Amino acid sequence: MQAVATARAAKPPADALDAVLASLSARFGDRFTTSAAAREQHSSTLTWLDRQPPDAVVFPETTEEVSEIVRLCALHGAPVIPFGAGSSFEGHVNAPFGGVCVSTEQMTDIVAVNVEDLDAIVQPGVTRKALNAHLRDTGLFFPIDPGADASIGGMVATRASGTNAVRYGTMKDAVLGLTVVLASGEIARTGGRARKSSAGYDLTRLIAGSEGTLGIVTEVTLRLHGQPEAVAAGICAFPSVRAACEATIAAIQSGLPVARIELLDAAQVAACNAYSKLSLREVPTLFVEFHGSDASVREQSERFGEIAADVGGGPFDWATRAEDRSRLWQARHDAMWAAGALRPGAKPVPTDVCVPISRLADCVEETLADIADSGLQAPIVGHVGDGNFHCLPLVRTDDPAEVAACRRFVGRLVERALRLGGTTTGEHGVGQAKMAYLEAEHGAAAVEAMRAIKRALDPQNIMNPGKIVIP
Amino acid sequence: MQAVATARAAKPPADALDAVLASLSARFGDRFTTSAAAREQHSSTLTWLDRQPPDAVVFPETTEEVSEIVRLCALHGAPVIPFGAGSSFEGHVNAPFGGVCVSTEQMTDIVAVNVEDLDAIVQPGVTRKALNAHLRDTGLFFPIDPGADASIGGMVATRASGTNAVRYGTMKDAVLGLTVVLASGEIARTGGRARKSSAGYDLTRLIAGSEGTLGIVTEVTLRLHGQPEAVAAGICAFPSVRAACEATIAAIQSGLPVARIELLDAAQVAACNAYSKLSLREVPTLFVEFHGSDASVREQSERFGEIAADVGGGPFDWATRAEDRSRLWQARHDAMWAAGALRPGAKPVPTDVCVPISRLADCVEETLADIADSGLQAPIVGHVGDGNFHCLPLVRTDDPAEVAACRRFVGRLVERALRLGGTTTGEHGVGQAKMAYLEAEHGAAAVEAMRAIKRALDPQNIMNPGKIVIP
Repeated sequence: MQAVATARAAKPPADALDAVLASLSARFGDRFTTSAAAREQHSSTLTWLDRQPPDAVVFPETTEEVSEIVRLCALHGAPVIPFGAGSSFEGHVNAPFGGVCVSTEQMTDIVAVNVEDLDAIVQPGVTRKALNAHLRDTGLFFPIDPGADASIGGMVATRASGTNAVRYGTMKDAVLGLTVVLASGEIARTGGRARKSSAGYDLTRLIAGSEGTLGIVTEVTLRLHGQPEAVAAGICAFPSVRAACEATIAAIQSGLPVARIELLDAAQVAACNAYSKLSLREVPTLFVEFHGSDASVREQSERFGEIAADVGGGPFDWATRAEDRSRLWQARHDAMWAAGALRPGAKPVPTDVCVPISRLADCVEETLADIADSGLQAPIVGHVGDGNFHCLPLVRTDDPAEVAACRRFVGRLVERALRLGGTTTGEHGVGQAKMAYLEAEHGAAAVEAMRAIKRALDPQNIMNPGKIVIP
Repeated sequence: MQAVATARAAKPPADALDAVLASLSARFGDRFTTSAAAREQHSSTLTWLDRQPPDAVVFPETTEEVSEIVRLCALHGAPVIPFGAGSSFEGHVNAPFGGVCVSTEQMTDIVAVNVEDLDAIVQPGVTRKALNAHLRDTGLFFPIDPGADASIGGMVATRASGTNAVRYGTMKDAVLGLTVVLASGEIARTGGRARKSSAGYDLTRLIAGSEGTLGIVTEVTLRLHGQPEAVAAGICAFPSVRAACEATIAAIQSGLPVARIELLDAAQVAACNAYSKLSLREVPTLFVEFHGSDASVREQSERFGEIAADVGGGPFDWATRAEDRSRLWQARHDAMWAAGALRPGAKPVPTDVCVPISRLADCVEETLADIADSGLQAPIVGHVGDGNFHCLPLVRTDDPAEVAACRRFVGRLVERALRLGGTTTGEHGVGQAKMAYLEAEHGAAAVEAMRAIKRALDPQNIMNPGKIVIP
């Protein structure tokens, strides 16, 4: 890499910021605010990190309006912080250098659904649930399911995934094309509606996961899937986390097309029992789902039952009724709130890592031992088919000692994942909270390449500064 | 984008080049050559483009040796052209500014196969067939199948795909991580063995498809799949290209997990009959394959037969015996040679585009009319499940008028694909031959972003210069 002077962000001079705010106020009227409540609400709320509110929030409706806003900010060197549903965990929407939060809350058009091509074009503020409600009668669905009703734009930005990723992939697989407002305010279109392309650098996947640091996503072309004819889902208890992981590996290796396979440790099962009024055995448990024809989901469920029995687990208690399935997955999605209810006054501080699946049992067992040693309460849930799991430390965030202990725990968790051949984050992203680990994961040359790309595409460092890399 | 002076490549001064060649000769001995035959063999052989041989060819064995070579070339400003199996079509391995061809022919180690994690780590010179031969007894396979026995490194570079992509994805999906020697000679590691990651910019997918213009891939971590328990494959005739496309759309929309679905137009069926000694009806035909359990491939084949019948096609004549399938797919893979045999003295000049599947019938029909109008002979084969198809114009490449007519035909084909919402190339890549169309596809802002990335990662423009974009 060539040597380039470090371009750290700084707060813009007060008069430059005033000029930006005055122009935006005049241009956007009641779609612009500097109220303390709105600014607070548009900074990170789901982490232990201190909130760092922006100076203002603006609510554009079109790509062209976003372009206008970014041009203005670029002219005055003001930071631009994109905001979707605010459901990210790692401080992505904090504004450490102030600036303008660009909320996509009013960009909720579903521009097109192309049933024959299994794709849709949406504005970034559309949430995944709103999209699926819209798709219900088309026979199609959008499978990426991170739990929260996240916005599609935010999901692109963090390269989100969730429970269905083992079968349907992550946002990197779901995004066919993007409209992006670059740091200059220029509007770029990447990818398109073709299912695949080898036409030049893959800007679509460079932007996906860039957390708003290279541009703001203003339109997304998504790949959809046919609603399965039949769905079977169920619960399977195991004598240990290791046995649950072994069953998962065997299922995937044998080519069973698992749609979802989720691990809950004993602590999380207990939390779900209490919160969601279930009566599961409080042992390591897999929630499993299959998609296919009536005959194939039956066959798959039976085969999974045999695989589970081979490692001492089971029985695999499955059903195809929609009500039974919904109750199960609602409980899974409420895991964070269920965990939170275990310790009143504390906040669940979700963090995630991902390791090769063969090391998952090691990683979870070591983490359980760490939790026991450190006296933390931190249930575990995992997208075990991907080797991805979440810890939910329950932290009194007003107690600096607890926050510091939690930080150290996360540091050990990341170090463990890297030692086992894994990654700092499987799906939550880097944000502010995981920047410190990036070089340990990727090495100096790769991180310097990321910095070079950031400098090339955002020379003033105005796009969501202070996230992922310091250019 | 910021304005940056255009950095066009140029041949290095003769004394600089001499210094590079002398150093490489001293360092690599008989793994270095300037022989005319070797230089010729390492320039493009499968296109109509004039061959532009490099000044020398070097055969490193390790990442560190590649790094040494690139450092030396960077010091003297000499171009570096990576070379895999030489099976690409668009002039990717030409050396318009001379320089050093880095052949990966001797980088053929399979470094690791992790059966539990369904991944493998290979050097870039391993070919897909060599990898699958190595995997045979593991229960795993590598599904990406572009026809030719391409090198894995070359397949990464062009973001290759092929017949299995409709089910297993393309190289962008198959690559978990890379080791890359950057333009400075530094060694960067991207991605890793975790199934998914949100840890920073997706350098893995930026390098995949960058055709050696951002670095040389020296190690690849690949995602593998379980060998299916059962495979059913067969042939289905249709009254028209449109009917074949409609059956494909219906199959995919209904969630049938098609593993391969390949269209041959009547001309290509005739060519295959003659070349591969088949006796197929010379009408538009789909070659289709399903992977699953014995019961599920039977169910899928029967359902596909019903779908074909609905649009007037069929019967779907399928079998599960390996010999029958092999014969079928060998004929499919020999399509290029079969087409070539239709016109002795001419060379098939394969080109590809990809459109949304709903527009595929339009695109193929318009293209057939264009072929008829222009008096070309150009059979069509397509990965119809992706909306991707190939034309194989048969051209006497020593006749400038024929070459010019073929160029114009390709221009019209690309224009048609873009008009129908598609892409310039679904899987062959840009190389030299399709650079002119990049801006029409992506727009000025996106292409300028590509240029900015190229300048940031290769400021001297030494990495495979004259391909994809002129920085």
